[in-house]
Order: sequence, then structure tokens, then C-alpha cells
Amino acid sequence: MNALRIGLCGNGTVGGGTMELLQGESALLRARAGRALQLCRLGARRARTDCPSGGVAVHKDLMEVALAQDIDVLVECIGGTTLALELVRAALRSGKSVVTANKALIAVHGNELLALAEANKVSLLCEAAVAGGIPILKALREGLAANRVSSVAGIINGTGNFILTAMESGGQCFADALADAQSLGYAEADPTFDVEGIDAAHKLTILASMAFAMPLSFERVYCEGISAVSPEDIHLAGELGYRIKHLGVARQSDAGVELRVHPTLLPKHSLLANVNGVLNAVRLQAHAVGETFYSGAGAGRLPTASAIVADLVDLARANGNPIDCLGVPLAGLVPQSIVAMDHVENDWYLRFAPKAGAAEHSKILDGLRAAGLSVEKSLSGSAGSSAQAAQLAVLVHAVREPVLREALAAISTLTAASGPSSCIRVELAG
Amino acid sequence: MNALRIGLCGNGTVGGGTMELLQGESALLRARAGRALQLCRLGARRARTDCPSGGVAVHKDLMEVALAQDIDVLVECIGGTTLALELVRAALRSGKSVVTANKALIAVHGNELLALAEANKVSLLCEAAVAGGIPILKALREGLAANRVSSVAGIINGTGNFILTAMESGGQCFADALADAQSLGYAEADPTFDVEGIDAAHKLTILASMAFAMPLSFERVYCEGISAVSPEDIHLAGELGYRIKHLGVARQSDAGVELRVHPTLLPKHSLLANVNGVLNAVRLQAHAVGETFYSGAGAGRLPTASAIVADLVDLARANGNPIDCLGVPLAGLVPQSIVAMDHVENDWYLRFAPKAGAAEHSKILDGLRAAGLSVEKSLSGSAGSSAQAAQLAVLVHAVREPVLREALAAISTLTAASGPSSCIRVELAG
Repeated sequence: MNALRIGLCGNGTVGGGTMELLQGESALLRARAGRALQLCRLGARRARTDCPSGGVAVHKDLMEVALAQDIDVLVECIGGTTLALELVRAALRSGKSVVTANKALIAVHGNELLALAEANKVSLLCEAAVAGGIPILKALREGLAANRVSSVAGIINGTGNFILTAMESGGQCFADALADAQSLGYAEADPTFDVEGIDAAHKLTILASMAFAMPLSFERVYCEGISAVSPEDIHLAGELGYRIKHLGVARQSDAGVELRVHPTLLPKHSLLANVNGVLNAVRLQAHAVGETFYSGAGAGRLPTASAIVADLVDLARANGNPIDCLGVPLAGLVPQSIVAMDHVENDWYLRFAPKAGAAEHSKILDGLRAAGLSVEKSLSGSAGSSAQAAQLAVLVHAVREPVLREALAAISTLTAASGPSSCIRVELAG
Repeated sequence: MNALRIGLCGNGTVGGGTMELLQGESALLRARAGRALQLCRLGARRARTDCPSGGVAVHKDLMEVALAQDIDVLVECIGGTTLALELVRAALRSGKSVVTANKALIAVHGNELLALAEANKVSLLCEAAVAGGIPILKALREGLAANRVSSVAGIINGTGNFILTAMESGGQCFADALADAQSLGYAEADPTFDVEGIDAAHKLTILASMAFAMPLSFERVYCEGISAVSPEDIHLAGELGYRIKHLGVARQSDAGVELRVHPTLLPKHSLLANVNGVLNAVRLQAHAVGETFYSGAGAGRLPTASAIVADLVDLARANGNPIDCLGVPLAGLVPQSIVAMDHVENDWYLRFAPKAGAAEHSKILDGLRAAGLSVEKSLSGSAGSSAQAAQLAVLVHAVREPVLREALAAISTLTAASGPSSCIRVELAG
């Protein structure tokens, strides 16, 4: 059978890793794909001595690669949503399939691009865009094809998980842990996308779309970052038996689909709570299989390339038959009503640093109960520093945020407390 | 496109679950497969009121289903390796694909059956045979297609994991935990296959074959059960920071491939150590993606059916093009030399119950060191019962079993100890 002819745009980290796998594992890939995966053209604005092209034609004008007549598939590894968008559009319009690791591109422009792919009878695949090397999209789309999924919860940003892990193990504050992540190359100079949850929201958008067969709905994802999480919160959560993770959650409820990214307390014995450092993980709840869990490297040169090349092997095997990226043809996607955050019920962790010290604790607890909240657990602790006023940590059961805020407003007039220092959601299961 | 026409043999737990998914989720499956999955014939030796055939033709002679002209694929859900073998052979010879959850059949007869499938240009798929509903074969075969796998380690028998979990959480002995597993339906009346590791060895055979592109080699798997694990071992391992799991391990080393099933100490913070009850999990180490981890239900009506139906969806999508069960055509499989257990190096946990009590501990440790063993950690404890003589638990570093046995023989003459009461391997990582 003829080779699958590949044009690759981008010779940075991910592009270089993809070249390494395509060229270094060519015999293995040919055996697994049933045909050769042949890198034919490389689009690179700058030559790199650490990424030799291996005799492949190099184009400084990336559009030449996207439009080349002699390639079957474009691998987009340049990132961003401007030139990448133009390249992907051009490739799809000219009848080429596209493989990309670009979560922003798919989350924001995916509905348009998938329609373009379908109209041109080609495929647009993005396994590498979510949770790096973990084959989570394949698991959702194919491995669990017989399932109705009810929830997806994931640690899908490695930078954030590195920071929270460092804060727990080293007792660092957020700013110091971020600086460490930056010096190790895990965080960008401008870390906004990672620490404010936007990157996780991109990935959650793709997961939710596949899980619930709904159009990509990035603009509807609630997004709360981790910069307000304090070492005190991590310590007190630990005392209560929990660990704080930055979680993306998509859940089907009677009211619709919840789409949310926020810091979350997880029971320490849960698998998600034991995913540390830059690792990613996803937990799925589905009607037939029950709970399944997947973890691994969420980023990095070869893990990301591993997912890109897996998509290429799938395309080679499919032999020209388009693969539905989201598991069903676009006509099979049904818009879902997205649950407004004010209507999402959560357990909550609250931390109070009462001005008047420990004496105020019982007043606060009484006030919370009087306001109708169900107090599951509470704990007084000084969170390490003995100089600090004693802190009160409280877990309250199943309540919507507006009700919680109202209760907190009520007790702020009843007690000397200046309101809670932290309010963080708690996730118990599935 | 025409429906994929399915003949199902067996209307027990797994067959019934498969019918439930095929009939209950038909619209979903049609959307995901691009064509209908139509159950056309049911082979059942006994009618069951709890598993109505839904108007499908029922055959008491199962061979009629395997040979029927009007089905494309046989789903074998009767289990065992006698009639099941005949049915699968007949179906493959008559040009039908086969989907099965039967690990014994594939582990023992897979080389013959896969050759038969290939010769007849059909597929033989068995996702449900390993780790139940977890799409682990798909992950290995497709998701990690760009990887050279170096090791597979899994909790792949739910019964054994239930027993070990119960022994830890309830302090029970093996016999009591087994009796509980039997009364809950998690263990058979004759539990040999599960507790002696034979079932796990079947599954490991399939995983290893796929991971290392080698023929199925069940007869080469080293197999050690969990019936000798004591509550004292679980307690002392816990004190040392470990949990005991029944692990299947396939590892590529310079000497060849290790294939082994045995009780294993795992660090408590590792993901595998946190997989409890009847759950299964598999950890893979591969050159590009690094470590990935998968967990979920390893058995049960709908989880197993979920995997069977996923295979059917794959067959429907492949549209008559055979799928290589092991990821490559059989000609691409290369026999590997299997490392004899005497040549496998492991860390070990040893437990001594010295006749003369705690006073002997330092003599034993000195003796182990004198015999050239590297003692990593040791601990004296009474394992709960104060009436018992104090026990000594020791972790020794990287040693082959014959060397360990020689050292133990040497100290048995030096000390009053009656030799160690337990020797259990320790797995540190990937």
C-alpha cells in the first residue's frame, strides 16, 4: 500500500519530537499502520541545527506545505490561532487531513474546522491536544463507544499541578512555586493561560464535546485559577483528609451539562489526588463501564509526539475513510444547555481567619448552621505558623454558591470574622 | 451502509450484558459506528427468562450460530476452552470475525486462532479479555502505536485484589477474606484460577504479546498465588510504607522478556497501590510517552460488555478490513527469549519470626549483610498480636532469588531463626 505522505509545519519542541518518532521508528510504524508513514515536507520559518530535516524538503513559507499536492495529511505544530488557523483551513479545503496538538485552535475554532473537514471528506484529529500522551480521546471515542458518559474530571494542566504539588510538598506560597516552575521550564514567562485555567478550559471543551456529543463550547466554560490557593489551605485541607488539585469537570445533570475549571479538594485516597508533579489524569464515569481512570505525561516533546503519531497511524489504517474526531458525524452533535455556575451544587471547604481568634469558631459554626448549611467537618489549626491567629477550616455539604454567599454574608454580621479567607469546592466522586 | 450482523453465543452474565448494550444503545452505537450493530442470532443452550432474546432467532445448537451464513461476526461468551474453541475455529474458517472475552482461549490457543483469522482475512478481537472494561488493549495497540514498550505491570485479577484489600482493611486472614469474596460472588467455589494467578497469567500473556510484538507464550509465565500472604505481612509492609498487591509483570530487559505473576510490595503512594477492591489497573512504561496508567472495572456484566461492544464498533468501522489483534500482522511477531525466574533481579521483603525473639534481630541482619545482601530497611514489630514473638521485617535490595535463598540458608545455621516466614518481591517503579 502507498505511504501516508505527511507534511509537518513547525520544528520546535513538538514538531521536532514528531520528526524523531517518524524517522526513528519508521519500521515499527510501518508494521503497525500497514503502510509507511513518510515525512515528505517540513515547514519551518527558522532552520534549527538541533532538528535536522533528514533530507526532507524544507519550506520557509508554511502555506506551501499546507497546499502541497503531494501530501495526504498536514501535521500542525506551530501553535497559536492565527497562522495555524489559516494553515489548517487551507489544508482541509485542499482535501488533506490534519493532525494537531493545538487545543486552543480546536476549542475555539473546532466547530468551523470540523465542518470543513467533514465537507471535504477528510479527518481532523487532535489526540495530542488533551492530556498529552494519554490516549484519552481514543478511549472516549472508541474504547467507551458503548457508553453514555455522565462525567469527566481531569487534572489537565501540568503546570498548575506542578505548582500545587510543590506548594504541598515544600510548603511554598503560590508565587514561589510558580517561579520554580518557570525556572524549570514548566511555566511560561506569562503564566496566565496555565494558572488561570484557560488551557485546562480548552482541553475540557474538547473532552466534554466528545463525552456528551455536543458542539465545542469553550465560551461557556467557567474558569477559576489557582493563584488564590494558599499554603494554609493546602495544609488545612490535608488535615481534613483532602488534597487540592486544579480540576476540569464536565458533568451531565438533570439541568444540563456543567463545564467548570477550578481548584478542588479531593479525598487523599482517590487516584486523582495521587497524581503529582506535571502529570495529567482524567477520570471518566460512564453507564456501562463505570469509573475508569487514565494518567500520564500531559506535555513534553515525545509524549505529545506519541499522541500525534498515534493519530497518523489511525489515519494510515483508515486508508482515506474519514474518522469523526468527536466520535460521531457533526449532524449527530446536539447542543446541550450549560448549567450556570449559580445552579451547580457543590460541597465546599471554607477557611476563616477570625480577627478575635479561636473563641469565635463556635459562633461561626453556629452561624453557618443557622443559615441552613450542613457542616460536615470542621477543624481549628494554626497552619504551621504559631504567630498566626488560629484558623478555622469547615467543610459544608451540597450547596449552591449563591446560597453559600448569602450564609457567609449573614454570619459576617453575627461574628467578628471578616468573612472566609478561602472558599474552595470539594469533589467527592465520579 | 449495511448493518454489521452479529451472532452471539452465550446468554449468561457477559452475553446478557452484551445483548443489553446492543439492544438498549442501538441509536448511539449506530451513530458511533456509522452503521447499525444488529444482533441477528443468539446461541443459548438454555433459555433464560432474565435474558429475553428480543425477537432474535435462538439456537440451542451453538454451532449453527458460528456457521450461519447471514452473520458477519461471532461474539463468543460461553467461556471455557473446549466448545468455545470449536465455535471460534468454525466461525473464523467460515470467514467470520470473532469477538471474545475469553482470556484462557486467547492465551492458550491464540497463536493458532490468530493465524486462522489472518488466513481467512477476518479479525479476532479480545479487548474484554484483559482488565474488563478498561480499554487497555486499544491503548497499547493504537494509542501508543509510536512507542517501544519496556514494561507492563498490572493488577489484572479483581478477585485477588478484593481479597488483599479486605485483608488490609479488615485485618482478615486469607481464608476468611476468600470466604467473603465467595459469598459476595467475586470468587468461584473453586478459586484456584484467581488466587493462584492463572487468570492473571492468561491476561499477562495477551498484554505481553501486544506490548513486545511476540507470540502468545502462556506456558512461559511464572505464576505465584496469594494464598501464602499473611495479615502480618500486610501489616509490616504497611509499616514499611508499602502495600501488597497481586501483580502481573512483563518487562523487557537486556536478557529478554520477564513474564511473572506474584504478590508484590508497592510503595503506598504509587497509583497501583491505590487501586482497591475488585478494580483492575495497568501501568505501562514506553519510550516516547513514558509512564501511563489505566484503571477501572476488571469484570462484571456491563463493564465486560462495554469492551465487547467497543470491539464490535471497531469492526463495524473497519468495514471488512481486518484488524490485527496484536497490533501487527503475525509475520511481524518475533519470539523473545523469556528470562528464567532465577535470573530476574528484584528487591525483596523478608519476614522473620525468630524463635528466640527480638534478641536475634541484629544477628539476622548481620548475617544477611555478611552474605552480601544490601539491607535497605528493617523493622521490628509484633504485627498486632502482643502474644506473638516479635517479627522482623527486612527489605533487601536488587538480588536474584537463588542468591537470596543461599544467603537465607547461610543465616539459618548462624541464628536461632527458623528461616524467613515470608519472601515477597518488591516493585519500585515502571
